[in-house]
Amino acid sequence: MPIGRDLKELTPAESLRRLAGVPLGRVVFTRHALPAIRPVNHFVAEGQIVIRSGPGTVFGADLTASEAVVAFEADELDVAERLGWSVVVTGRARLVDDPREVTRFLGLLHPWVSGDLEQVIRIRPEIVTGFELVPGPVL
Amino acid sequence: MPIGRDLKELTPAESLRRLAGVPLGRVVFTRHALPAIRPVNHFVAEGQIVIRSGPGTVFGADLTASEAVVAFEADELDVAERLGWSVVVTGRARLVDDPREVTRFLGLLHPWVSGDLEQVIRIRPEIVTGFELVPGPVL
Repeated sequence: MPIGRDLKELTPAESLRRLAGVPLGRVVFTRHALPAIRPVNHFVAEGQIVIRSGPGTVFGADLTASEAVVAFEADELDVAERLGWSVVVTGRARLVDDPREVTRFLGLLHPWVSGDLEQVIRIRPEIVTGFELVPGPVL
Repeated sequence: MPIGRDLKELTPAESLRRLAGVPLGRVVFTRHALPAIRPVNHFVAEGQIVIRSGPGTVFGADLTASEAVVAFEADELDVAERLGWSVVVTGRARLVDDPREVTRFLGLLHPWVSGDLEQVIRIRPEIVTGFELVPGPVL
């Protein structure tokens, strides 16, 4: 049976609430002038998204860089039912360099894999968009 | 109980095989000089990824543009088990403009929502990377 769906826009507040409620997202950045994406686990603290990464990934090959504009996407999409939501945040990513904060965040954010993921990065949302799939006309 | 995982690299061929086996991915592009991402359904035909989009999205505000460098990501990640895989393809996206191809692809790629998604876009993989999470040392 055909399924009809419409997009319902989510408010920025609701979008951030949903993003904060899932453990996994995707950070989108520019690497060697090419669009790049990587799945990461995250959490939200004081309205900002916190992730871990390895040096040279999000901030590029210049290892002294500590700031970049990124997007961060999280979703829960059910392919069979064609229901769910997706949220995209665009904002400035900054390296967390306060040692107490680094220690606190490293304790909260357990990487899934071994390897060098010692950078803690905070993303301050500037543009927040989200949508939800809701029942709609059959196409 | 702590779970240990390692990343196992997938070959480009295996990466493309996995990407072709799922219906949903995320196209990553540049919009107004900012990184942007959108979930889309896709399929793979003759080694290229085919998606639908609305005018002005993937190719930017210049509505005569028909080419862009994009990334495309697909994954199956189980948050509870911390198992799964993720594949990222980087390549040139081109508008499909042969009317017969457009008709054929539109028939194969049913959008989830109503709206203007009449552009058919083909992404030719140039860089293909993928990883799988496999059991590893506990961190």
